[in-house]
Amino acid sequence: MGHYKIQPKDVFFILKEQLGYGSLSRLESYRWLDEKTLDLLVTEAIRFSKGVVDPLNAIGESEGPRLETGRVSSQPAFRKAFREFGKQGWIAVARDPEYGGQGFPNMMRIVVNEFMYGACQAFNMAASLTHGAAHLIEEFGTRNLKHAFVPKMYSGQWSGTMCLTESDAGSNLAAIQTRATPAGDHYNIRGSKIFISWGDHDLTENIIHLVLARLKGAPPGTRGLSLFVVPKQRIRNDGSLGDRNDVVCTRLEEKLGLHGSPTAALEFGSRDACVGYLCGERNQGLTHMFQMMNAARINAGVSGMAMAGAAYRHAVDYARQRVQGKDVTGRGADDVVIIRHPDVRRMLMEMKAMVDGMRSLIYSAAFWSELALEMPVRSERDHYADLTDFLTPIIKAYCSANGFRVCETAIQCLGGHGYCKDYPLEQYLRDAKILSLYEGTNGIQSIDLMGRKITLREGACLNAFRIELEGFCRSHRNPPGLRTQIRALAETAEDLWKMTGKLRTRRETDPAQWAAVTCPALMAFGDVAVAWRLLDMARVAWPFLNRGDGGDAFYRGKVLQAIYFAETRLPLTRAAIQTLLREGREIVEMPDDAF
Amino acid sequence: MGHYKIQPKDVFFILKEQLGYGSLSRLESYRWLDEKTLDLLVTEAIRFSKGVVDPLNAIGESEGPRLETGRVSSQPAFRKAFREFGKQGWIAVARDPEYGGQGFPNMMRIVVNEFMYGACQAFNMAASLTHGAAHLIEEFGTRNLKHAFVPKMYSGQWSGTMCLTESDAGSNLAAIQTRATPAGDHYNIRGSKIFISWGDHDLTENIIHLVLARLKGAPPGTRGLSLFVVPKQRIRNDGSLGDRNDVVCTRLEEKLGLHGSPTAALEFGSRDACVGYLCGERNQGLTHMFQMMNAARINAGVSGMAMAGAAYRHAVDYARQRVQGKDVTGRGADDVVIIRHPDVRRMLMEMKAMVDGMRSLIYSAAFWSELALEMPVRSERDHYADLTDFLTPIIKAYCSANGFRVCETAIQCLGGHGYCKDYPLEQYLRDAKILSLYEGTNGIQSIDLMGRKITLREGACLNAFRIELEGFCRSHRNPPGLRTQIRALAETAEDLWKMTGKLRTRRETDPAQWAAVTCPALMAFGDVAVAWRLLDMARVAWPFLNRGDGGDAFYRGKVLQAIYFAETRLPLTRAAIQTLLREGREIVEMPDDAF
Repeated sequence: MGHYKIQPKDVFFILKEQLGYGSLSRLESYRWLDEKTLDLLVTEAIRFSKGVVDPLNAIGESEGPRLETGRVSSQPAFRKAFREFGKQGWIAVARDPEYGGQGFPNMMRIVVNEFMYGACQAFNMAASLTHGAAHLIEEFGTRNLKHAFVPKMYSGQWSGTMCLTESDAGSNLAAIQTRATPAGDHYNIRGSKIFISWGDHDLTENIIHLVLARLKGAPPGTRGLSLFVVPKQRIRNDGSLGDRNDVVCTRLEEKLGLHGSPTAALEFGSRDACVGYLCGERNQGLTHMFQMMNAARINAGVSGMAMAGAAYRHAVDYARQRVQGKDVTGRGADDVVIIRHPDVRRMLMEMKAMVDGMRSLIYSAAFWSELALEMPVRSERDHYADLTDFLTPIIKAYCSANGFRVCETAIQCLGGHGYCKDYPLEQYLRDAKILSLYEGTNGIQSIDLMGRKITLREGACLNAFRIELEGFCRSHRNPPGLRTQIRALAETAEDLWKMTGKLRTRRETDPAQWAAVTCPALMAFGDVAVAWRLLDMARVAWPFLNRGDGGDAFYRGKVLQAIYFAETRLPLTRAAIQTLLREGREIVEMPDDAF
Repeated sequence: MGHYKIQPKDVFFILKEQLGYGSLSRLESYRWLDEKTLDLLVTEAIRFSKGVVDPLNAIGESEGPRLETGRVSSQPAFRKAFREFGKQGWIAVARDPEYGGQGFPNMMRIVVNEFMYGACQAFNMAASLTHGAAHLIEEFGTRNLKHAFVPKMYSGQWSGTMCLTESDAGSNLAAIQTRATPAGDHYNIRGSKIFISWGDHDLTENIIHLVLARLKGAPPGTRGLSLFVVPKQRIRNDGSLGDRNDVVCTRLEEKLGLHGSPTAALEFGSRDACVGYLCGERNQGLTHMFQMMNAARINAGVSGMAMAGAAYRHAVDYARQRVQGKDVTGRGADDVVIIRHPDVRRMLMEMKAMVDGMRSLIYSAAFWSELALEMPVRSERDHYADLTDFLTPIIKAYCSANGFRVCETAIQCLGGHGYCKDYPLEQYLRDAKILSLYEGTNGIQSIDLMGRKITLREGACLNAFRIELEGFCRSHRNPPGLRTQIRALAETAEDLWKMTGKLRTRRETDPAQWAAVTCPALMAFGDVAVAWRLLDMARVAWPFLNRGDGGDAFYRGKVLQAIYFAETRLPLTRAAIQTLLREGREIVEMPDDAF
């Protein structure tokens, strides 16, 4: 009973026709690769996501993990799938073969994640956290740590987590209280963490926690955090599993969704016997952790786009089958399938453009992140690094917020049936809501964008985005059928740059009012980024119009969705930008008691 | 453990200071009433909603009704509460004392419904459907029917339902297949209905179904539907309960939310022994049913507003207590409560303005609906009837869509905690989603508004709205502090009238493109209506500013929310209106295969 729906041609259109990902094989590191191999990887990932991952979505929903006497047990189907997932190399698609990785470009990890998250977010979080935790150790750990942990994690024998949040340190990591004390060849860890995704389970024989904690005498705030590797089961010198470490799961959250994924409260060192290993430099824990957090933020966006994509395709299929009501133009006496009803089509169009635009934005960012690592010239690498740094909070916040919105719209297309559990849409809606909350709320993302990324490296990140976007508008004054829309994009972008300048000043003169508009400002950037990618796809699709070979409809869809988005969304974006620059300070001036 | 939160002063501000509902006692029918009695009713309704109804919300969620061997059993707490609810007269607050009603103005039923829906939507649906079904019989039934059914329903001894939907007749009621055949003093009913809220349960000893069915030889489509009263238990001539009628519950839906409310599939006459009674005129069933449907549509809006209001107050209380992060202005070294963070305040402001604006719109419409019934002069009654007819689809669709949005934002204020079942917000979100789907999807509402209400009675409905709104803008050029915002409202309204005219033409020339924009057009009307009501509240609050008696903050809040909404929302509304009038027809032109 397959639930996950995706059209591979939408994926390949972006990868091959828009981005030309085959060109990656011209990079030094990927000489061994050709486009056909990449295509095969994508096809195989879709096949695996549908065959192995998708069935877990309903299973996790109906019988979630349970905490009994300090142990969390998961569904056997999840255990089996995780083993398979690891064995087939999906955890470490883009990692170094020295540690068991597949050596594919980093970009492909993100593409593969669309399918895996779309098929079952709850499950893929486990795989994704394992990848992120192992990659942290690979990057910052000692040789010993790397060899002890990384290969077993990349192969899925062990899994990983990311332990940041405490009950008084959520958005504010400066308040982290967990302590680490040196004890010979290791550290004693002591503290309580909450909201740890896949913090305990029995999918794997060991769980490797990456824990932010504070060494004695460390500076206060986030500059005094160090990163520790804390296994659930201790490791003997010969690499085999030893005793249980002093890490206890004390609680699983009951949540709106993601019922297949255990969200754990973990107690480290309650018996004062929790062994941990320093990973990377002292007091550099948060900086190190950002590698994992940035990937997790992109993944939140990927996941929002992926679920939205699946929800959209369900809505399309329903609308093609469900017969109800007459054609509004009065054509024919019979009832029609509801895809003929313009209000249903409107919802499908909104969803289609949003999903495809988000997908293109994410794949493009993934492509650019590859160039940031692999371009031969330093300045080019810097440019693409700046660009991806800039896009990270936009992708996280915009795609999580709009992914949720698409899931909501998909339900709307089904009428009352969308509200029922006979269709997976209500689960997508519930699962997708987490994405705007975790890995830094969308509010935090907006402060990262408008506070940090705008000014970082003397504005280089913003500049990289601007160069690319303006370059697009300049080079593509054709085809004539898109000229108006590309001009609208250029004008909206102009508004955006002006807004950014004014908000930079306002941040100095009136920080409270500045902070009251960072979130809508980020959304404006998102609208522009998505419109840009949609118009770029339309430009690529244009020459294929009117070929009369039957494939025409697909390319027409790419063009029409871009025109629709540019003409109906960008005017709202421009209006929103103006409202951000108002003099009015009602949000700041509101008396606390008046709420 | 009280979950339901509401500030009575917000309610009374609208009722007393904005609308002056005490003036109802000047109407002939309400000479016996005074403002104090109305105030007492409101206070008592809030007390009852918190004490008796609110606890059901969590109970219904954790142990929903169950279908076993053809019988649905509900939670004993629901049974007890329903009895209490009926006994205390809450079902028939505004109905004729001859049939056991309390005789309060119709308006008060809507006000009371805010609290009851806000406290537990699942439960209040049962009460509300009972009221609506009994009111239909009171209005259209024979004397015998009225005496046999109405008093027992108004007192809560029996309950009622509304049976329209069939598996192939949802949005399109013309396709209803259920048949009625004359059989002496009654009719035999035969057919299957789905999605019947509270279609079976054991809260009451009898359930009275109001069923749309087709008589033999009736015209096709909706003009051939008649309305029947179909009891679950037959009634003997002496009024006592007889045998079980031939009505069987075959299924309960599993849903995203509303777990406390059984959504039933009902089989009428599978043993060919289903007794029903004609209610009202033959073939006028849908027309009659519209009395109940219009009330149900208003109730969907009330419910959206009510849940949004409760969710908002939860978010405010959380934001006042939760300490996290430093003040952005750098004031003080300590961490602050998150209500100090501007992005949190922005979300609170968005929610506050939306909730209060929706509440004022709904109460105002309720007030006007009263005047439509009771004004001494015919032309005045007509004016207010036109006005309420116009506002019904707007209230239904706008408040359901935005109520959901507020619940989502409230979750966002709580960060990860909002995703957890420790707070009732995730339930509000799930429960609220039904409102845009049932009682006619929001798409159907938009066709009612832009297709029917705009032209109905030669445009009298639209005109009534226009007269009121323009009257407001003309009479209130003061206070000076609101002048800009009232001008913005007047200008947006001008755009709206122009849009409406153009869309009327387009409906003739290009019906498909017209139908592609009715939904956003309705939302534009909603924005304007809400801005109008907010500015009217601000005008009323203005003289109370700067009195220095400590109550100042409350009135400042009313002014600031109106300014904020007018200045940040109306520019988007105006931009949206322009996009509706574009020449582009992408939605219509999109090849079906391209979705």
